[in-house]
Formats: sequence, C-alpha cells, structure tokens
Amino acid sequence: MADDKKLTPRAENFASWYNEVVLRAEMADYSPVRGSMVIRPWGYGIWERMQRALDDMLKDAGHENAYFPLLIPMSFIEREKDHIKGFAPELAIVTRAGGKELEEPYVIRPTSETIIYSMYSKWVQSYRDLPLLLNQWANVVRWELRTRLFLRTTEFLWQEGHTAHATREEAEEETLLILGIYLKFMEEWIAMPPLTGLKSETEKFAGAVRSYGLEALMQDNKALQAGTSHFLGQNFAKQFDLKFQSEAGQEEYAWNTSWGVSTRLVGGMVMTHGDDEGLVIPPRLAPVQVVIVPILKGEDTGPVRDKVDEVAARLKAAGVRVKIDARENLSPGAKYYEWELKGVPFRIEIGPRDLAQGQLALARRLTPEGEKRKEFLPEEQVIGELPERLEEFQTELLESARARRDANTERGVKSLGELQEAFDGGAGFVFTGWSGDAAVEETVKERMKATLRVLPSEAFRSDSAPAKCVSGDADSVAEVAWARAY
Amino acid sequence: MADDKKLTPRAENFASWYNEVVLRAEMADYSPVRGSMVIRPWGYGIWERMQRALDDMLKDAGHENAYFPLLIPMSFIEREKDHIKGFAPELAIVTRAGGKELEEPYVIRPTSETIIYSMYSKWVQSYRDLPLLLNQWANVVRWELRTRLFLRTTEFLWQEGHTAHATREEAEEETLLILGIYLKFMEEWIAMPPLTGLKSETEKFAGAVRSYGLEALMQDNKALQAGTSHFLGQNFAKQFDLKFQSEAGQEEYAWNTSWGVSTRLVGGMVMTHGDDEGLVIPPRLAPVQVVIVPILKGEDTGPVRDKVDEVAARLKAAGVRVKIDARENLSPGAKYYEWELKGVPFRIEIGPRDLAQGQLALARRLTPEGEKRKEFLPEEQVIGELPERLEEFQTELLESARARRDANTERGVKSLGELQEAFDGGAGFVFTGWSGDAAVEETVKERMKATLRVLPSEAFRSDSAPAKCVSGDADSVAEVAWARAY
Repeated sequence: MADDKKLTPRAENFASWYNEVVLRAEMADYSPVRGSMVIRPWGYGIWERMQRALDDMLKDAGHENAYFPLLIPMSFIEREKDHIKGFAPELAIVTRAGGKELEEPYVIRPTSETIIYSMYSKWVQSYRDLPLLLNQWANVVRWELRTRLFLRTTEFLWQEGHTAHATREEAEEETLLILGIYLKFMEEWIAMPPLTGLKSETEKFAGAVRSYGLEALMQDNKALQAGTSHFLGQNFAKQFDLKFQSEAGQEEYAWNTSWGVSTRLVGGMVMTHGDDEGLVIPPRLAPVQVVIVPILKGEDTGPVRDKVDEVAARLKAAGVRVKIDARENLSPGAKYYEWELKGVPFRIEIGPRDLAQGQLALARRLTPEGEKRKEFLPEEQVIGELPERLEEFQTELLESARARRDANTERGVKSLGELQEAFDGGAGFVFTGWSGDAAVEETVKERMKATLRVLPSEAFRSDSAPAKCVSGDADSVAEVAWARAY
Repeated sequence: MADDKKLTPRAENFASWYNEVVLRAEMADYSPVRGSMVIRPWGYGIWERMQRALDDMLKDAGHENAYFPLLIPMSFIEREKDHIKGFAPELAIVTRAGGKELEEPYVIRPTSETIIYSMYSKWVQSYRDLPLLLNQWANVVRWELRTRLFLRTTEFLWQEGHTAHATREEAEEETLLILGIYLKFMEEWIAMPPLTGLKSETEKFAGAVRSYGLEALMQDNKALQAGTSHFLGQNFAKQFDLKFQSEAGQEEYAWNTSWGVSTRLVGGMVMTHGDDEGLVIPPRLAPVQVVIVPILKGEDTGPVRDKVDEVAARLKAAGVRVKIDARENLSPGAKYYEWELKGVPFRIEIGPRDLAQGQLALARRLTPEGEKRKEFLPEEQVIGELPERLEEFQTELLESARARRDANTERGVKSLGELQEAFDGGAGFVFTGWSGDAAVEETVKERMKATLRVLPSEAFRSDSAPAKCVSGDADSVAEVAWARAY
C-alpha cells in the first residue's frame, strides 16, 4: 500500500519526484541484483499494453516474432569491430556452467545482431528467402554503472527487430518504415510526441551505417532517447557470411536493419505525464481506466454494493477496464489519494446519497483549465460517455505534451553563446545549424552538457534554418536539435 | 523452404521423425550455443497462442504478471538446502561483468523462487497484503547434458507463478486450482489430455513439500511431464523471512506455491498429433488455420486471383486465420506437401474449373476413417462452415489423443513381472498399487527404465485398484501410474 506523505514536488527535485512516483505507485522496486529492478504488476501491466499495441503494428507491417538464444559465444560478438568496441565495457560474461569452466565464454546478449545474423546466413540462400522480417521480445543485459528505474537498468526488456533485404533501397525503406511506426505508436499510445531524425556519427549505434532516433522531451526539459532504428548496411552480413543468390544469379551480401524500444518507455510515460500528485497514465495503457469507490455509510450497505457491481458490469460490457476498490480498512479519502498516485484516469464514487438521487460522482485524474474536477452526473450519462471521455483524456494528454515540447523548443539559435544562454534559460530542444564536424559536438558537450540528439526529419525542421554552423563561420550542412539528455 | 524428401516414419524411429518434423516444418533450429535452440516464427506463433490462452486463464483466476531479475546472487540460490542440491549441477554462472571480476557471482535463474520470495518479504507485512498471486513469462537456463529441441534445452521459455498465502489451506487450494487450470488448458488448447496427480518424494521439485504433475502420453508411449504445480509449505518463507502479521496479531510465515509450463509444450503438441506427413496443429493454436492455394493455368489468371482474395477476405471476416500461398516458383503439389508438413488444418484450392463451377476444393490435414480427404463444395458452404469445422477438428484431435492414451494404459497390474511384461509389450501408462517405498521406484527404474509418474488424481484412478504393492506383499497405500518418460 502506498504511504501517504506528499511526493517531492517536480520543481524541487525532478529526479527524486520520479523515483518516488515509480516506487510508491508500485510500478517497480529495487532488487538485490546490482542495477536490476523488479517490475511490479502496475508497471508490468502498462508494459504489456505497450507490447500488445506495438506488436500488432509490427505484425500488420509483415513482421513475425521469433526467439534467439540469451547467450552469445564471445567470438561472435567480437566479429564486427565497431560493435564490440561499443559493447565490450558493458558485457556480463558466463564463464562456468554445468559445474565446469567453459572453453569459450558466453556473453549475455546486450543486443542480438551477431547471433541473429549468424542464423540468417543459414536460412537465406536465394532472393526468394528475402526479405526476412523478424522481431523478438526479450531481456538483455548491459552492465551500466549508473542506473535509474526503467530508464537505465543492467537488465531490461525490449523488442529487437532484425531484417535482411536484397537491396540497399529496401533496407533503407525498412529503417524509415519502423521509425514511422515507432512515432505513431509513441504518439497514439503513450501520448508522448518525440522528435525523430538521424543520429550523428558520434551518437550512432555501434556497428550501424546510420541510426535514426526518437527523442522525447521530459518535463525537466531533458531529452529521452525513446527508440532507435538502424540501417546496418552490409556490415554484419559480411562478418556473418549472410549471402544470397540474386534474381540475376549473382552472389550478393544481404542488407540489414535493426531497431528496438524498451521498458525505458514506461519511464518516459511517467516523466511525460506525471504531476505532483503522482502518475498519470494515458487511458489506452492504463491497467485500470476507472476505479469505483463505494461510500459505505450506515447499516445497510447492500444497495450501494449492488449498484457498484452493476455499474462495474455495465462499464466492462462497454469495454472499459474497471476496478472496484472495496477494501474495508481504508477510508474513501485514502483510496482517492492512492488511485491518484497510481494515475488511474477516472474515479467513480457511489454512496447512499448518490443512490437516492440516481447519480454518480465522476472525478478526472487531470482537469483541464476551468473545468470541475468532480462532477455529479446521471448514471446513464456516465456509462454512455465514459468510453468517449477516455479517448478525449488520451487526446488531451498528447496535445498537452506536444504543446509543452514545442513551448520548450528554441529554433534559429546562431552561436555557441546563444546556445549556452538557451540552456541556461532552461530550454529543452535547441535547433541550430551544424557543419557536420564532431568537434562541435565535443565542445557543446563539454561546455553545456548537451548532445546532438538528431538531425531532425523533415516534419520537424524549421521553416528557415540558419545557414551557418552554430560554432561559427562554417556553412551548415544540416539543421540539428541539441538537448541535455538521459 | 522445406525440402521434399520423405520423413522417417514414426514407427521406424520416433526420435528421428520428431527432429525432422521440428526442423523441416521450420518450428525451430539448432543454434551455435550448446543445447540452446532458435524458435522460428512457425514454432513461436504456436507458443504465442499458448501464452495468450493460458495468460487469460491465469488472469481470470486473479493472477497478475510481473518481472523479476534474470540474475540471482549465488548466496540466494544456496539458502534453501534441497533447492540448491537439486539445481547446483545445472547452473550457468556469471563471474565477470562490466570489465571486472564480480565479488559475488550471479547464477542465471534456473527458476525464480529465491529471488521472488526475497522480494515478497519486502512487500508483505500484514495478512491484508495476502494473497500475493504473481506470474512471470521469462527465460530460464539449466545446463542440461542431453538436449532435444523444445523438450529439453539449456535455455527455455516458460511462465512461472509464485504465490504467497496466509494459510496452509489456501496455498494447498491454489496448488490444485493451478493443476486444474493447466489440465483444462492442455485439453482445450493443445488437445493433449494429460494424467494429473501427485509426484512421489523421489520425483518432486527441489524445495517443495508436495509436487503435482501433468503427464501426457506421446505417440511412442513415453510420458512427457507437461507441467507442474508445487506446494512449497513454508520452506522458502523461512529462508527468506517472508512473514506477516495475521488477523489475530500474530507474526507468521507465509505459505507458498509455485508452478510452471514451458516451451516443452510445443514439443508435446508435435508428438501428440503429428503423423508421417508431418505436423498436425490444433486449429486454436495454428498460426495459419486455412491456406489457400490458387491453381493458375492458362493466360488469364486474374479471375482466379480475384476469387482467392475474396475468399480470404470473407474467411478473415469470419475470424479464420488465412494465408494465401501465391508463390510463383512452386507447383501446387509442392505447396500442398509443404503446408501438410507444417500442419495447417485446412487447405482450399481454387482453379479456373472451380471458378466455372462455383465451387472450391477443401482438403483436411487429417481425415476421419471413411471420409474423403478432399471435397468439392460450394463457396458459400465452405465459408459458412469453416469456423465450425475448425472446432470439430480441434475436438477430434482431443478425442483421438484421449482414446490413444486410454488404449495404451494398462490398469490393475499386480507384480513386477507383469509390469515388465506390460512395458515389454509397449504399454504407455501402467497402473499398480504401491507401498510408498522409494526402493520400489529404484527397482522399477533399474529394471524397466520406467518411473513413477504420478499418484493419479481421483478422476484418473481405477475403479478397483490392487490392494497390494506391485513389488510384493506390502499393502498398497496409493495407486500409481508408471511410464517411461522424456
């Protein structure tokens, strides 16, 4: 049960607020394993709904699920040079098994390109076997030094898609198709509108030719990398001998993509919508969309209980996820507090007076400016309107997150001095011109702790971007978005 | 693509037949990791449907999903003495991570009682926090020496439920509730009717007070342990200090249960229903329930293609999972062969002649005695009847598996000599009396390679079981079922 002392306000200490919300809403807990967490039912229920929604979208686009081994032979992970350079410091290594030292150690997968493309090379002979469009839902381990619940943990859950194609063009299209699916998924389900775009060479995936990222702006104006989609070219195909006979009869290397999102998204949801009272869960992801609290007064509580059961049954029949909180050791007020902390979108209260008047009390977790938090409405109206009100709530969350993102984005910034000012002033994303030189990234990182998040996709670019690089006189080759990031 | 040489017949070599079916139906493949396999989309699609069905049943019974760490501190797994004794030989151990030797090594979970009950002890204070009914879908690793695709692999996927209760009675009820859910699930979804019952002390789970098992009879008359449900008493609660304050204000240890089924079920499905032509998938689990093969002859193939699309769309609208096999490099015959090998329940063929006659050819993967394999039927009839025919197919598989199990079960066997004869004669389950003495199990195992599978639940017991133990003069304390087992 959640304790009832107030949360640290976001404005006071956002990091403390975040940890308190996650722990007290019972989404997750620390575990005895360094940097690993336990995902509790409230957090896992949200993840399950994310999984289901994204899985449906990926399958609709022709992908199938499969499952590859957890353990990867050390020699596999070492084969692609940039890949091992990127992942070596974070590997967890199995050296003993079945009572013996292993001749070749295994690493616990930090990502599965190497094991998967080694299998693809066995399955693919001809262009007729392509494209191969597989995805897996799995756990991975990266031995991170600094961990945060959901945002960065030594073990996390994710999906990782791995595809093989006959042509470069098709693989590049796939990379962007997935970027679009992720964008749609994050907007429509998490109500979290990210920027999308290309990553710089400095920030790209270890082993990729090009990486695309989705960057969402949290309420503390730090960016969260919420998903990535990589065009791998033939880098892995060449190391794992993933060849096929083309329609013209030539032997060619396949072209690969890989892409993933993780339980980090749950943390993103918290930091996008939560407030000083706790979590706010977008209705489409909420394990419970409406909680019903009976107000039991007097001796004959039967009629109230009956009405509560009836309303719950009718809402369920209308496709609403309902929970009745009938605990007897808690006051209604304590229950309200707890379900607000847990972010349930709507609450219904039913007491003897409501019964007499044929009404219910309907309370929203968030209240738009100028509207009442709690309304007394006829039962029929509540049941009839709730599905629609849940969708409105979902839409409002997205609009509000988008408005916040845009209000905290500065465009047209022309110098390092202005960039510094923008961050000192608390800006979120700052758009500038860029010469393409990694040295500029180093300078900005050193001085302002900000990084180049993306070269924004067309939809996010400024109408007129600066013609010069933010660092000075060099011509800009691309507009870029900077931010401090998780 | 499946190659088209014939499978080894089951009667010739059941083990070879099994491996060939699994590999050639593209359900799974060997991996470069010793004893681990890759689950390919055709196998994973079946597992996903099993997951969904069982998950719904577990949730309906009040369970919630959560996720606990993959890695378990060595000191945790060692705490319950029988538990570590059972699992020590099979552990895979992480000794290095993040570039350093670990001070305390981690084991990759072979099962999660220890890590989960250590968390429960943190979450449970009062009887009001009980029962705690959690389940997780996860991978586990057990370093087995002899592995078989799906049946025994070093890594496998499973669900493991872990519950905590205020009273012994409630925990015992939970153990049996799950046994019942598993039975129903295996019968209704996998069409695989197991025996259920109590395990002997010799065969119980390492750390349990009592274990119950579900034992399904494969076509080679060997038993497959398809699932288990354990009453753990207070064994783990005492080691992990899982205590609560009772309603009466006393401090008491909680009572635990744990239970699981795994990807082994996919192997059980194969060995229950497959035939010499390949896999037979129960319709409720089939990724594709009906495959449509267009017969393209002559120059104008447009009308046939249109009809195929139309029939597919109408079947989809009726809730049937349909696939159109429009590959141009394969003959219809090669396609029939492949989809029969892959176990798709129904096939529809549509060619120009069918079009002219307003009919379709409908072929069943299995044909009941005396019925035609392929029927020519009006389109309307096929579309109208297919959902029902799929359910009939499902029911027939269950009935046929049950009849085979019962036909291969011998009851009332009274001596070790008769028991030996039964197994020599190829019996599956053999029921006898038993004194309760583990020495009898040892004798039977040594002489006949058979083990005591279960003390059958009431529904499976004989009307009149022998009064004496199969070993001789001692009184029988329980009827038992013996079998050679996977």
